[in-house]
Amino acid sequence: MAFLRNTWYCAGWSADVSRTPISKTFLGEPVLMYRTEAGQPVAMSNKCPHRFAPMHLGRLKGDVIECPYHGLQFNTEGRCVHNPQGDGKIPQAAKLQHFPLVERDGTLWIWMGDATLADPNLIIDTHFVVERDRYAVGLGHLLVHANYQLVMDNLLDLTHAPFVHPNTVGGSPEDSLGAGMQVGFEADAVSVTSTYFCADMKPTPQLRPLYPLPTGDLRISMRWQPASSLAMRLSMTPPGQPDGSGVVLPLLHLLTPIDEQTTHYFFALARNVAIDNAEADAGMMAFARAAFEQEDEPMIAACQAQMGTTDLLSLKPVLLSTDVATMKARRHLDALIQQEGR
Amino acid sequence: MAFLRNTWYCAGWSADVSRTPISKTFLGEPVLMYRTEAGQPVAMSNKCPHRFAPMHLGRLKGDVIECPYHGLQFNTEGRCVHNPQGDGKIPQAAKLQHFPLVERDGTLWIWMGDATLADPNLIIDTHFVVERDRYAVGLGHLLVHANYQLVMDNLLDLTHAPFVHPNTVGGSPEDSLGAGMQVGFEADAVSVTSTYFCADMKPTPQLRPLYPLPTGDLRISMRWQPASSLAMRLSMTPPGQPDGSGVVLPLLHLLTPIDEQTTHYFFALARNVAIDNAEADAGMMAFARAAFEQEDEPMIAACQAQMGTTDLLSLKPVLLSTDVATMKARRHLDALIQQEGR
Amino acid sequence: MAFLRNTWYCAGWSADVSRTPISKTFLGEPVLMYRTEAGQPVAMSNKCPHRFAPMHLGRLKGDVIECPYHGLQFNTEGRCVHNPQGDGKIPQAAKLQHFPLVERDGTLWIWMGDATLADPNLIIDTHFVVERDRYAVGLGHLLVHANYQLVMDNLLDLTHAPFVHPNTVGGSPEDSLGAGMQVGFEADAVSVTSTYFCADMKPTPQLRPLYPLPTGDLRISMRWQPASSLAMRLSMTPPGQPDGSGVVLPLLHLLTPIDEQTTHYFFALARNVAIDNAEADAGMMAFARAAFEQEDEPMIAACQAQMGTTDLLSLKPVLLSTDVATMKARRHLDALIQQEGR
Repeated sequence: MAFLRNTWYCAGWSADVSRTPISKTFLGEPVLMYRTEAGQPVAMSNKCPHRFAPMHLGRLKGDVIECPYHGLQFNTEGRCVHNPQGDGKIPQAAKLQHFPLVERDGTLWIWMGDATLADPNLIIDTHFVVERDRYAVGLGHLLVHANYQLVMDNLLDLTHAPFVHPNTVGGSPEDSLGAGMQVGFEADAVSVTSTYFCADMKPTPQLRPLYPLPTGDLRISMRWQPASSLAMRLSMTPPGQPDGSGVVLPLLHLLTPIDEQTTHYFFALARNVAIDNAEADAGMMAFARAAFEQEDEPMIAACQAQMGTTDLLSLKPVLLSTDVATMKARRHLDALIQQEGR
Repeated sequence: MAFLRNTWYCAGWSADVSRTPISKTFLGEPVLMYRTEAGQPVAMSNKCPHRFAPMHLGRLKGDVIECPYHGLQFNTEGRCVHNPQGDGKIPQAAKLQHFPLVERDGTLWIWMGDATLADPNLIIDTHFVVERDRYAVGLGHLLVHANYQLVMDNLLDLTHAPFVHPNTVGGSPEDSLGAGMQVGFEADAVSVTSTYFCADMKPTPQLRPLYPLPTGDLRISMRWQPASSLAMRLSMTPPGQPDGSGVVLPLLHLLTPIDEQTTHYFFALARNVAIDNAEADAGMMAFARAAFEQEDEPMIAACQAQMGTTDLLSLKPVLLSTDVATMKARRHLDALIQQEGR
Repeated sequence: MAFLRNTWYCAGWSADVSRTPISKTFLGEPVLMYRTEAGQPVAMSNKCPHRFAPMHLGRLKGDVIECPYHGLQFNTEGRCVHNPQGDGKIPQAAKLQHFPLVERDGTLWIWMGDATLADPNLIIDTHFVVERDRYAVGLGHLLVHANYQLVMDNLLDLTHAPFVHPNTVGGSPEDSLGAGMQVGFEADAVSVTSTYFCADMKPTPQLRPLYPLPTGDLRISMRWQPASSLAMRLSMTPPGQPDGSGVVLPLLHLLTPIDEQTTHYFFALARNVAIDNAEADAGMMAFARAAFEQEDEPMIAACQAQMGTTDLLSLKPVLLSTDVATMKARRHLDALIQQEGR
């Protein structure tokens, strides 16, 4: 399976990158990241072109990174600017591949493809992350032992919630499915969205501390954009009241392939109520951790293990009407990957 | 290497399967097992046909099993009987493969091949397991890190006993080989049997608590039937006395491939003396555990590791006269596998 | 990648082999080693030709080794001399491959190729190891998680020392490179040598306890001989004094491939000062362990992991002028391997 390269992937949250060089693997490639003295985050291949040593173990000298093995120095564009050895000559090919890296709304975005196509306007809207007057926000990261497309499938089809998350973000099957969940989907040229509506439903365990009434109208939308960014919005209103008049939770689920079998899962969660409430902060993160780490990840990883391949369709899965959004997104992504390969 | 599919494999002991669904892997396939409300054990593929989730993590609703991921429900024949999602339609292909499972004499037998050929009359005789008036019986299970055919080889050639088991079930080489062990073998259309006779021999450490005399005549037969079921009988009589007049130990060694490199080893041990004796029970199991887990398994696994392949013959092993039974059984099994492949 | 077989590899230090049989893996093959009653070390394949059992788990009966599985006995030439089973016949092919093994200067050398070519005169000079009146000597062993040629590269290009070993055997880049390190290399038909000279340099942390002056002239030579034996000599003299007039440290770095991704690294260290000084002994070994185990090994293993292959040149590394010796040795070795393959 090929990855889509000409797209923005989340490389982490702003706090992840500092003056201490780090390495993270994206699309199979180890990537060096650090901040310049001016605070600019930079990303380059983590493999020294001389002996493939891991650059992030080297020293920063100002904005220049020094290879930890033989001391070659590279600037933030990846150009070798100093060879301390022997005649000191610097071969033309002595370069670290440089990757465009954009920091926006506390989020880092990396472009692993053709740098000339890296248009920051293509980055999805993540503004709520920094609207701290409107939202309390929590950020997290998870390692998923499965192909990123299985995580996309999980997120674009939330009908799993009553079964996988009965005690956290789902609620019991009886409460949600019994409440007559309406599932829909929409697609346009650049996105696929699945939607859920449930009238007069009991709040899920996650919502109870935030929503005081015994029942409410639940609305969820999950919008996927290529390659693997998903923006979610959940609202719970008193029965019959207009959307937005109650609790609103915006979320981000940003997936970056590590390799075909492993995925970075960066998530942001926000709420428009109990904003300055440390207990609510802790509760929101605890529910998210429980749901994503202890419920979703083991289920997705178990499916991957039982599949034994990363190509779902080769196994001829039985498809349900609720798979429309996942299949639409998979076909869209596949077409982009095919097109890029040509 | 292909596995023989149209044959009965041991799937465990009766107590292994209950109202709590479990998964065991046989011939590379994860298999779901549970009991119906009426107590009937059932076996099906553990992979939901929708997203390949592990069914054994789901809930039992009566005799119906619910997928833990999106809630599809399947009956004991593997047919999907409920889809809680969206329009609720059930695709024709929504099935779990159903495997014939027979419970007999406290033993579970599974048929991984063509279900129409699954004739329970083909199951080997294991009646002693439930003859609790005649025998004290112990049951066990072992994981072997080697191909099942290497375990067959181990069992069909017990001349390894003095070297691998001098302090447990073998006795020292001097005591057994010095006693003039006679090794024979018999084969018919459906089985291969190796036999051992040693006159006036010191009892092995395992036999000492059960057999009071200083020497005796030891008789062992080990009967293999395809694919990998071995029934053993050991008798020790006072010198010159007829077979069966002293201690008799019937045993089962039932091998079920997990994959090419790993094997389920189910064993049953029985004795016709000291039947209601808890100390003798504990001793019998302790000797078996020591012999199988700490002596045989490490030796077989070490051979497998040094072979680096599961095809013994491709390594051109040197064969001894004592290999007649193992080679006969291997050729027999290979012919069955070839025939099935056509 | 093929290994050079017709060459001497270090099989360990004399103390490694005793009357307790052991197995070590060289060039992908498990090798049995033990000493005869007369003290002669012997090496044979560790795989019994019957069922590939690990011979080193068997018993020594005099000079004869007994297979731990079925009791075949082999003499020190690898010939089967006893079959305790059945008719007792010994098949012609029942042999353990015998490997020439030479013990010299406390060092064991094994020849994994054509035994008729195993000329002990081809073994490199290691005499200092036993010159205990001239040198204090320490011996060690390290497991390296990388191809042996990456370790060769490390040793034949010591310009990495200031970066990898600033606090142990290297000294800081400023002290050494600033001191105007002169790097040279020499090659002849049977060896490649890299040389280093640094006038009036601060002693490295390792040298400080041994060399009392604030600065000195540092000379290092590192001589590689195929397949992967490296003899090093380091001298530190008062500025301007002749080589040898101060501290002299002879070292051996003897590399034996375990497989393509793992390497035995046997090292010997000696010094001509503070000979009968236990504290100096401990310090010398501590610096070596720190430098080799905690600094070199992780760096080399990290390069190997980032390379993902054992064929360096297929990755088109950028080469520096300081790579002349490493590339010369690699080409020399490659030619020998090619030649042997024909």
